[in-house]
Amino acid sequence: MDQNKALSIVKKQITEKRYIHTLGVMETAIQLAEKYGADTKKAETSAIFHDYAKFRPLNEMRQIIVEQQFDPRLLQFNPELWHAPVGAYLVQAEVGITDPEILDAIRYHTSGRIGMTLLDKIIYLADYIEPGRMFPGVEDARELAQISLDKALVYSVRNTIQFLLSRNQTVYPDTIDFYNDLIMKGEDVQK
Amino acid sequence: MDQNKALSIVKKQITEKRYIHTLGVMETAIQLAEKYGADTKKAETSAIFHDYAKFRPLNEMRQIIVEQQFDPRLLQFNPELWHAPVGAYLVQAEVGITDPEILDAIRYHTSGRIGMTLLDKIIYLADYIEPGRMFPGVEDARELAQISLDKALVYSVRNTIQFLLSRNQTVYPDTIDFYNDLIMKGEDVQK
Repeated sequence: MDQNKALSIVKKQITEKRYIHTLGVMETAIQLAEKYGADTKKAETSAIFHDYAKFRPLNEMRQIIVEQQFDPRLLQFNPELWHAPVGAYLVQAEVGITDPEILDAIRYHTSGRIGMTLLDKIIYLADYIEPGRMFPGVEDARELAQISLDKALVYSVRNTIQFLLSRNQTVYPDTIDFYNDLIMKGEDVQK
Repeated sequence: MDQNKALSIVKKQITEKRYIHTLGVMETAIQLAEKYGADTKKAETSAIFHDYAKFRPLNEMRQIIVEQQFDPRLLQFNPELWHAPVGAYLVQAEVGITDPEILDAIRYHTSGRIGMTLLDKIIYLADYIEPGRMFPGVEDARELAQISLDKALVYSVRNTIQFLLSRNQTVYPDTIDFYNDLIMKGEDVQK
């Protein structure tokens, strides 16, 4: 889809602040795709639509999770996770995007999963390090992203899990699966 | 089983150092059982046998996991986890203990699981805080154990997960399930 058309569709769905975030994710995802040999157009489209469902009412998202028979564990965990799988569904249903790689990258951009594809990884990381992000560790993640995609991902997902633990929040099982999968494949990074 | 008989059986299976640890777990488990209303005799027996398989050769443990069709994910994760389910199996096969509560407490004493029973929790915590344990945070865990079993458990399992993350080690899914289950049931604790 043409970039301007895609952006105009998304702009109607999200806040101005979230739109600026989306532009940052788009730029970062394209850079990472160029660096690591992914399809830059798919990275662009996935990034533009990754937060498409971010501001849907919780009731609507819950209904879609139930009706579309998404993993029922989602309903027990933080609703912040819901916009990702619901977004993948709505981007197909409402915008007509059918590319399974793009839909997966949207679906797993918050939780991660076992067996993340290159595109999944790029969108996850771009969402974490885009220029508008400001939190402890983001500079280290940005530096690692220039060295190794997987090292940057281990750093990012570990930082996320540590943050959740420190706040007495639950950790979605797919996120631990993603972390374990990276560790088992031999990537690690000194803190 | 008579305490002396049980101890004499276990003493032949483990090192002197581990036997002293076992005595500490036994004492702590009995105290916790008295405090939190669990069966003290079951706590004693579970504690005495919890590390029964600790020094079995990895090949023997691997074979039992495969032949007995234990969760195949165990084989991908840290072999330190294996002695718990293998111990539950061997304590039944070799010692003749058949009480399912005792066997479960042995089986889940390292990983934890969703829906830990009172006895499971007591053995898990006793193993973590027995008087011979020395590591950062153990004093806090011991203090919490006098206030709330679940608060002490949240503290302990979180500390364990944080330790694994800091060492670039994998986190067994049952351990995150145990943590999430405690958090969802409303127990938390300030660090």
